[in-house]
Amino acid sequence: MMERYGVTGFSWVPTFAQGLNRDLRVRWALEEAGLPYDTRQIDLTDRKSDAYRQVQPFGMIPAFSADGLDLFESGAIVQLIAENSETLMPIEGPDRIMTVVWMYAALNTVEPPIDNLATLDLQHSDEEWAKLGRPTVVEAVRDRLAVLAGQLGGRDFLIGRFTAADILMATVLRLVQHTDLVASFPAVDAYLKRCEARPAFRNVLGQQMAEYAKNMPTVA
Amino acid sequence: MMERYGVTGFSWVPTFAQGLNRDLRVRWALEEAGLPYDTRQIDLTDRKSDAYRQVQPFGMIPAFSADGLDLFESGAIVQLIAENSETLMPIEGPDRIMTVVWMYAALNTVEPPIDNLATLDLQHSDEEWAKLGRPTVVEAVRDRLAVLAGQLGGRDFLIGRFTAADILMATVLRLVQHTDLVASFPAVDAYLKRCEARPAFRNVLGQQMAEYAKNMPTVA
Repeated sequence: MMERYGVTGFSWVPTFAQGLNRDLRVRWALEEAGLPYDTRQIDLTDRKSDAYRQVQPFGMIPAFSADGLDLFESGAIVQLIAENSETLMPIEGPDRIMTVVWMYAALNTVEPPIDNLATLDLQHSDEEWAKLGRPTVVEAVRDRLAVLAGQLGGRDFLIGRFTAADILMATVLRLVQHTDLVASFPAVDAYLKRCEARPAFRNVLGQQMAEYAKNMPTVA
Repeated sequence: MMERYGVTGFSWVPTFAQGLNRDLRVRWALEEAGLPYDTRQIDLTDRKSDAYRQVQPFGMIPAFSADGLDLFESGAIVQLIAENSETLMPIEGPDRIMTVVWMYAALNTVEPPIDNLATLDLQHSDEEWAKLGRPTVVEAVRDRLAVLAGQLGGRDFLIGRFTAADILMATVLRLVQHTDLVASFPAVDAYLKRCEARPAFRNVLGQQMAEYAKNMPTVA
């Protein structure tokens, strides 16, 4: 028995956050795997509600329903989808192992400094501590991007072929698209463009942008 | 064919970092699973060397060797160990899925603000931006701990029984042991103590502390 998957995201977010929400990772993975799914939408203001916390205890998106289970954590959801799709993850052997390694590298080593920078710039840019602390955060991001550039030399994707690890890494890199940091590492820049050029990504991004446009709040 | 596992950590670290290094996660998982392994040690100053970067591109610890492969990322290594040990992860079904969910929750939702706070306090405490920015970071940590406290109500471990997700979550929570944050959430505090009381954890922590003591640099 296999129910149709459900992916929960926000009905609308401000322009600066559009295309950066983590439900996009899950939708991209489902699209690459050719799995049908429904989208469900909550308002930004509903995310901390008791009802939504029953599904996603941290009050974040995405939430994911599959086979009667309510799941959360974009990394876990993408991995669980990938385990059922050879398009996203080799079934066994060293390539499967290195896919898992790079999934965690994307979310536990590369995303933290990148998310810190995005948070500083997009949510705290007027605050003194954010201005003073920014150079330290930028340096941490540059360190990670330099390593990534070295890894990608001569390879199209992280383990060679496209996998779920690239979905996570590309969506992480997009979080600093308001800066020139990725562009300053040509191998990383080319890699991100290669990921973003995939038809599955273009489809889900286009669909999400259309949803946001449709749901844009009217001025009261 | 199965080679003996090898876990690389630092030969010695300053007192404030002892017991917080991420190779401890891997050693704890191996100990719970009853798998034999060798430890390998690098000096703090060697971590950015070209030779070590061949094994661990980000110049961090742990590195892990298994079946001729060089792996990195503590989360990925713990997961791969767990996939071969029912002690650490149920083989299939909803409990396996929720173990994966909580592994990613530990490393991608709970660890980032906690690691930010540890970094502020342990590496940047004299800097003005760290002082000014600290309340925002503490608030983010409190948010996560409050959710965790709610999840743990009535449960001994994250999914009920002990799993690899608890290894990751407990080692994340230990990163702010220099504060009273965990203690201020009794359910989380009791959970962490429950994890730390496990014989496997006590063994590997004791072994690592003995190694650090033995390798303590002499004053020149």
